[in-house]
Amino acid sequence: MNSIKTKAVILLSGGLDSATVLEMAKEQGYDCYALSFDYGQRSLVELDAARALASAAGVVEHKVLRMPLEDFGGSALTDDSIAMPEDGEQDESEVPVTYVPARNTVFLSLALGWAEVLEASAIFIGVNSVDYSGYPDCRPEYIEAFEKMANLATRAGIEGNKLTIATPLMTLTKGEIIQRGIALGIDYKKTVSCYQADARGYACNHCDSCKLRKEGFVQAGIEDQTHYF
Amino acid sequence: MNSIKTKAVILLSGGLDSATVLEMAKEQGYDCYALSFDYGQRSLVELDAARALASAAGVVEHKVLRMPLEDFGGSALTDDSIAMPEDGEQDESEVPVTYVPARNTVFLSLALGWAEVLEASAIFIGVNSVDYSGYPDCRPEYIEAFEKMANLATRAGIEGNKLTIATPLMTLTKGEIIQRGIALGIDYKKTVSCYQADARGYACNHCDSCKLRKEGFVQAGIEDQTHYF
Repeated sequence: MNSIKTKAVILLSGGLDSATVLEMAKEQGYDCYALSFDYGQRSLVELDAARALASAAGVVEHKVLRMPLEDFGGSALTDDSIAMPEDGEQDESEVPVTYVPARNTVFLSLALGWAEVLEASAIFIGVNSVDYSGYPDCRPEYIEAFEKMANLATRAGIEGNKLTIATPLMTLTKGEIIQRGIALGIDYKKTVSCYQADARGYACNHCDSCKLRKEGFVQAGIEDQTHYF
Repeated sequence: MNSIKTKAVILLSGGLDSATVLEMAKEQGYDCYALSFDYGQRSLVELDAARALASAAGVVEHKVLRMPLEDFGGSALTDDSIAMPEDGEQDESEVPVTYVPARNTVFLSLALGWAEVLEASAIFIGVNSVDYSGYPDCRPEYIEAFEKMANLATRAGIEGNKLTIATPLMTLTKGEIIQRGIALGIDYKKTVSCYQADARGYACNHCDSCKLRKEGFVQAGIEDQTHYF
């Protein structure tokens, strides 16, 4: 545990990955400010999960911002006219239809605004290039470019106080993420990964996100306590 | 006039600069999609101006998105507890208190999301390094870094279809901007620059933005028809 505390903004979706990132940032000694978005996603139950996780982690503050990304369309996560893919339906070489246009860029930009006001030294995001190699905005070269831009965009950057975009999951498999999280005491039953979870947070057991999560628990050698409907 | 039309997203605030940029994009042959933000700014009359300008320019579509930047505080434009500076009150070497944290980054990121869905090839923004050298996110090195990040963030970037962040005002003085806009037929009476314009769009004649605008008309040798209260 680092004894010199500094502030970090943590992007918290309510899923397994961001729940783990939040506990990792805590472990590194940061005072944590959690940021979640209501961006027109079909499943709002993940925001309830984010609130429960933020509360359990004892964050300094948790903001949930309304972001009208559904106004742009273009993703199965926000646009009801695009079908949600079932397990194995999509060619792995393509960008998934569940990709939301510029989502991580919009989320990181808002985190940057808050970080600037807080004078935070880091933004934590649970991107992962192992499981999500099809999403352009989950790749290390994207994160590096965002960090460089962010440090040119702000007062802090001008004054030489570097902001770090921290991606502690970048090179971990889902199984490794779960093992780290269990060691940090996370109760993964509180997290929601499913793209179409029901009002109780129960998962569909069919979508890509459910598939990755299930495989992760198998890889980790840890019992999957997720509720499926 | 370019005969091969492509799409561009234009960030349109309702001020003098973005009104000029919109007409410049039209002149370059783009099909224009205007994007404005209700971001908690004190003066909402500029959104009425944006609607009038978008309509006069015959844009394909105009979206006004609600963006809760005031939740973060930190700027005189969105935070009532910070005093609006009067003419000459602020040291020119400092970042102005009217700077909104990460504003251009947030606006450009949302423009990027729409551009991706539209398959637009350019985003136009009225930043200017001559008059606004105190704002970190108006500098050319910032815009270059954003463009690089944007092309790593999106499907289009992965597929090699480069997106351009167009800044046609970057090296122009306010006087030069006004001369270009008059030549393009802009009625600047429709634009609102003042940070605290009243409900009619009348300007205060005291804030930094009013001062720059007035000097611009003097530089351009063109009569200033702005209404002051």
